Amino acid sequence: MSAPIAISEGLDSRMWGSSSSSVLRRQLFLIRSLGGFRHKAQMAGRGASPTLEADAEGVIRRITPVLDPIRYKGQAGKIAVIGGCREYTGAPYFAAISALKIGADLSHVFCTKDAATVIKSYSPELIVHPILEESYSIRDDEKASVSTKILAEVAKWMERFDCIIVGPGLGRDPFLLNCVGDIMRHATQSNVPIVVDGDGLFLVTNNLDLVKDNSLAVLTPNINEYKRLVDKVLNCEVNDQDGSEQLLQLAKRIGGVTILRKGKADLISDGKTVSRVSTYGSPRRCGGQGDILSGSVAVFSSWARHHLLSNKQPTERSPNPMILGCIAGSLLLRRAAALAFENKKRATLTTDIIECLGKSLEDICPAV
Amino acid sequence: MSAPIAISEGLDSRMWGSSSSSVLRRQLFLIRSLGGFRHKAQMAGRGASPTLEADAEGVIRRITPVLDPIRYKGQAGKIAVIGGCREYTGAPYFAAISALKIGADLSHVFCTKDAATVIKSYSPELIVHPILEESYSIRDDEKASVSTKILAEVAKWMERFDCIIVGPGLGRDPFLLNCVGDIMRHATQSNVPIVVDGDGLFLVTNNLDLVKDNSLAVLTPNINEYKRLVDKVLNCEVNDQDGSEQLLQLAKRIGGVTILRKGKADLISDGKTVSRVSTYGSPRRCGGQGDILSGSVAVFSSWARHHLLSNKQPTERSPNPMILGCIAGSLLLRRAAALAFENKKRATLTTDIIECLGKSLEDICPAV
Repeated sequence: MSAPIAISEGLDSRMWGSSSSSVLRRQLFLIRSLGGFRHKAQMAGRGASPTLEADAEGVIRRITPVLDPIRYKGQAGKIAVIGGCREYTGAPYFAAISALKIGADLSHVFCTKDAATVIKSYSPELIVHPILEESYSIRDDEKASVSTKILAEVAKWMERFDCIIVGPGLGRDPFLLNCVGDIMRHATQSNVPIVVDGDGLFLVTNNLDLVKDNSLAVLTPNINEYKRLVDKVLNCEVNDQDGSEQLLQLAKRIGGVTILRKGKADLISDGKTVSRVSTYGSPRRCGGQGDILSGSVAVFSSWARHHLLSNKQPTERSPNPMILGCIAGSLLLRRAAALAFENKKRATLTTDIIECLGKSLEDICPAV
Repeated sequence: MSAPIAISEGLDSRMWGSSSSSVLRRQLFLIRSLGGFRHKAQMAGRGASPTLEADAEGVIRRITPVLDPIRYKGQAGKIAVIGGCREYTGAPYFAAISALKIGADLSHVFCTKDAATVIKSYSPELIVHPILEESYSIRDDEKASVSTKILAEVAKWMERFDCIIVGPGLGRDPFLLNCVGDIMRHATQSNVPIVVDGDGLFLVTNNLDLVKDNSLAVLTPNINEYKRLVDKVLNCEVNDQDGSEQLLQLAKRIGGVTILRKGKADLISDGKTVSRVSTYGSPRRCGGQGDILSGSVAVFSSWARHHLLSNKQPTERSPNPMILGCIAGSLLLRRAAALAFENKKRATLTTDIIECLGKSLEDICPAV
């Protein structure tokens, strides 16, 4: 019965809306008093672990920075996407432009030369660095020096970033993934948060040390990526009967990394608490929505970190900013997808959803 | 107390609206009579130097040319941006397209080959010359001849331009910056005004001779660029208590170059006067707004020069067209940013602001 206690430790009125905190406190009192009784209202779908539906709107309102005219460029967030190769250019664009549309000031993409021209042409708003290389473009004897050069190119920017997103459109070229592993290690050393999605999850699942014990790392697996992760880490199959508990164990086993398990309801855990966001989004499953989510989580978790650090010194009881970022990112995508679907129905594409990010955020948290 | 006297020398009813000129004359009379009394209404924030809020709308109305059907292509302005390299393509595009959207007839971009294809793809409205080179693309023994060739390519166009903008997306490659230094010298010899922003300011801060004593040069530093400039030229830190006086000294020390210090309020000085534009814009600080400003200042200062030259022979007491260009450019960007923010809120990006330039100018100065 570790989970309910863990949840109570992580509970904080800043994390869940003050309006609902008295209800939650009462629920947790019940859990403790009854020695583990699991209140039905707290169940995540058919799962057996207690999972709290997050007050995601409250989280967004709390962490989104006030737009103060005295602030200068960069203070609302500098995000970088590591991804984009010969095959994939849409995914890194979606992640990077979503970050800007939510309110980040600067959005960079580090990708291969082939991808760079195309990603640049999608939008002049992005800063695109054509620095990654795939095996086909280099000789074996160049690999060591090229790898060093790539890391150096990213490293000189690293400390400026509030968060990096690893994986959108990364591909699976072994040499490229190897370089990206080095970049992730450098980000970890520099205390730069990392959101891992797409092929970044393929890399991480096979190299768990890249995120192990990194409380500033977020994994955002879809159903198949989650299956591979559970298989690799817990050496078992996905347990939908007790999904929350298994997610909690998985996050704990990777050392407190935050995992956002995408599904009909998104489940989010860092090994201490499990939160759920189940606001209805859209029935369209067009490719690219995961990239919006990774951009969204990157911005919101950066804002959450700044919000928490600016208010007081973090303690053991402080909410985890990466969890807050996941809760906020999950809700915003769902709201934007719902709004886009209302207008475009079956024709809804990822670019339509991106165009609805601003209005959706404004509805929750007006800018002025 | 040099500043107030300097301001009175630069004062001209054409520069500030006729409606407010009697008030200003009275204020300046007070300043003289009281031997330096500093009227509170004239203070720039906490600064101790008197700084006049410019009648920027009046300036825009006065310098914007009438759209006369007998005029032909080019008469409303031919602008060139020197910038755009492997990493940056958005910035030169923003500067060049802004110039067109405000009303220039032709907008050129001189950039590297890598950048050219992308910038061309952003818009068919621009004339893009893929002529610059970065160190990585040429051998050491080619450098001298390539450099000569690049200068010759730009030189054959130079006299057609009403203004060049140096810096948006220029990057910091030493060879490229060296070539751009040559281009700036050529522009100065040809009496072509130069607006310097972004990496152009990095170049200029390290090579002050490139703009020294050039009254047709404008620098548009942001907070960090200004800090480096003050450190280099005045060998001290930025003094926010007496920001106007320090700006005035800085401009004077560089020999009468015009400096637009970007901030919550923009301060503008050529070493003789200090003007302020503090109309509220938008709290969004997305990257690229500085590029709009450089395009805007280039067009308006060209218009101001034509306006002054067409009316009468300039005298010592004539207003400085570069100052007028800065005042007009600053206001227009602020108005367009406010309009874009009204619609897009946190999702406001630089392209949204550019789309509002036309409407904002029309509101101030209707075309017919």
